[in-house]
Amino acid sequence: MEHATEILFGLFIVFLAAQIGAEAAQRLKMPSVVGEIVAGAIIGPSVLGWVHINEPLEVLAEIGAVLLLFSIGLETRVDDLKRVGRLAALVGVIGVIVPFVMGAAWARSSGFPTSKALFVAAAFVATSVGITARVLQELKALNRLESKVILGAAVIDDILAMLLLGLVSALQIGDGVNVISLILVAAQALGFVILIAVFGTRIMRRASNVVEKPVNPLSPLMISLVLCLGLAVAASHIGLAAIIGAFLAGMAAGEIRQRQELEHQLQPILAFLVPFFFVVTGANVQLRQFGNWGMLLTLLIVVALAVVSKLIGCGLGAWSLGRRRALIVGVGMMPRGEVGIIVASLGKAAGVFTDAVYALIIAMSLITSILAPPILKMLLKREKAEQQPATA
Amino acid sequence: MEHATEILFGLFIVFLAAQIGAEAAQRLKMPSVVGEIVAGAIIGPSVLGWVHINEPLEVLAEIGAVLLLFSIGLETRVDDLKRVGRLAALVGVIGVIVPFVMGAAWARSSGFPTSKALFVAAAFVATSVGITARVLQELKALNRLESKVILGAAVIDDILAMLLLGLVSALQIGDGVNVISLILVAAQALGFVILIAVFGTRIMRRASNVVEKPVNPLSPLMISLVLCLGLAVAASHIGLAAIIGAFLAGMAAGEIRQRQELEHQLQPILAFLVPFFFVVTGANVQLRQFGNWGMLLTLLIVVALAVVSKLIGCGLGAWSLGRRRALIVGVGMMPRGEVGIIVASLGKAAGVFTDAVYALIIAMSLITSILAPPILKMLLKREKAEQQPATA
Repeated sequence: MEHATEILFGLFIVFLAAQIGAEAAQRLKMPSVVGEIVAGAIIGPSVLGWVHINEPLEVLAEIGAVLLLFSIGLETRVDDLKRVGRLAALVGVIGVIVPFVMGAAWARSSGFPTSKALFVAAAFVATSVGITARVLQELKALNRLESKVILGAAVIDDILAMLLLGLVSALQIGDGVNVISLILVAAQALGFVILIAVFGTRIMRRASNVVEKPVNPLSPLMISLVLCLGLAVAASHIGLAAIIGAFLAGMAAGEIRQRQELEHQLQPILAFLVPFFFVVTGANVQLRQFGNWGMLLTLLIVVALAVVSKLIGCGLGAWSLGRRRALIVGVGMMPRGEVGIIVASLGKAAGVFTDAVYALIIAMSLITSILAPPILKMLLKREKAEQQPATA
Repeated sequence: MEHATEILFGLFIVFLAAQIGAEAAQRLKMPSVVGEIVAGAIIGPSVLGWVHINEPLEVLAEIGAVLLLFSIGLETRVDDLKRVGRLAALVGVIGVIVPFVMGAAWARSSGFPTSKALFVAAAFVATSVGITARVLQELKALNRLESKVILGAAVIDDILAMLLLGLVSALQIGDGVNVISLILVAAQALGFVILIAVFGTRIMRRASNVVEKPVNPLSPLMISLVLCLGLAVAASHIGLAAIIGAFLAGMAAGEIRQRQELEHQLQPILAFLVPFFFVVTGANVQLRQFGNWGMLLTLLIVVALAVVSKLIGCGLGAWSLGRRRALIVGVGMMPRGEVGIIVASLGKAAGVFTDAVYALIIAMSLITSILAPPILKMLLKREKAEQQPATA
């Protein structure tokens, strides 16, 4: 095949596989992202070898990841944080600390040097609340107290995870960990976040008044996309992950008055480009990594660690709600989903994760995302049967 | 700058330049595409050198072109063709033949070998009716007889232009032109078009009944995008331009029942990706090509030829409407816009056009697109003053 045709063919196959995978997953009552990644693994070099990841595909995947994090940021509203209050904050913070510490301890004991162990630990921290939110929505449970705590805590979790990710990825540039560079990187990341969170949101709020005409370069969509790409570049330039800039851009863009219109217009762009990220991620997974019992045992340990650390961390934070509700909160915060997958692909790109670690973290992210919805449904239905009215 | 950052920076600069260019053009009452291409020329190697065209940018530009032609195809409805009838068909056909013959004659006399001269001629054929349609809409003249003729003829023009383009680009594979290969290529192109036009539309009409749920892999948008990429690959594989497949996919997708929803959802994707095509196109223009009087004179001749050939061709076709209305039809069909630009970029990619020819065709496409709207407005206003009621 000619080169240009081959590249187009790659795009086509990846996109088609994503659609088939997502549809299959939905029919099996699983999150679409699971189907897209599995489809990627199947068409990738591991199984069929129909697609080879070239630079254009990688860039499309990167754009997909940037837009995905932008949309996550868009859903992360500063005002929501203030509303959910101390309980959610507690759940969010302890729910980050416990998995991070447990993840780092495991990685360190498995022989990773400290800086790499911290990167591995960052994958345990991530929470993909999208999957949980969909389950809560399906069961019409979004107004319950524990749901509000979960959604509020997830926002704090996202912000902390991004900060941690910025920190650990910047740490990889040096060889070891020294306190001064750690502080410098943390200060830089924090400064960037505060700068955007404060000024970005102010600028976007003011921009709301300028942008009125719907389909032109000054529409909210176009301004937001410029902001998204611009902050992604800025973050990348100062050594943070590009997606962190995109996430912050999303948070800032969330303050615009036309936010609903923006979210609505963003949907088709996400639907077109985000699958490239997941399929490419899947295609990069070497399935043969799981070809021996040792590795399967390790996967079991990693998944158990991921589940238990969130249950303990978030459960402790929500303990005041009573044991059963604390359990619901813990299960709701369990799925790593796309956030864990993004950590894995960043770690691979930075050369920190071996193929085995990459495969482990992807698999852990998928398994936690598949496990959480049925458990959550079971717990919520049992709770409902006992008719405890929600105290909002 | 690190490689990944540099690529992201390229994306950001291209997208930002597109927005600024489009906004500036709109304020100057010019089509956005003019602003985007000029912005590309400015940030490109010709002037500022801020962006260098690498493979990922080229692929994004290609995706933009594919989606653009898909959307043009979407607006090209088979039923419309039947409605407008013989007059529009006459305008469309003669309006293709005259510019093609005049363009080929000029290119041949300027020293191009026959196969390349035919490619150059294809650029004269293109009509970008989008620009004219917007002017007609602004002046609330869409219901006038000459407007209907223009829009109908433009559909026929588009189809013939795509056929011609498929033909001339397939011809470039051999060295000379021989009758047998010409017939073979024509048959292949025609077969492909008929196959898609007949079966594609039928399949999409039937698909209308399957697809009901709005946001999932089986939504009209996702099916259409799969079709678009798939036919682009298929066209590319059999030696036609990928965009021809995309155009046909658009025509087929136009038959779906949820066409309006589809067009609506496609808008943000187009807004995000099509600018990459125009800015990259602009960045590829070497402005220094116009640094001497000889080249400027050639440009003048090419523009004059482009204007006159459409005026004659379409004017002749619409002669039965009277001289003034025939003139309006001719002017309305004048802008080459994005279709001419696509021919130019295909010619450059195929190695058929030198940098000078590429720059000439881009400039001609832009100038005809800038010239047509004010002339059309003038003619339509004068016509209106004389209060001739439209006979529909």
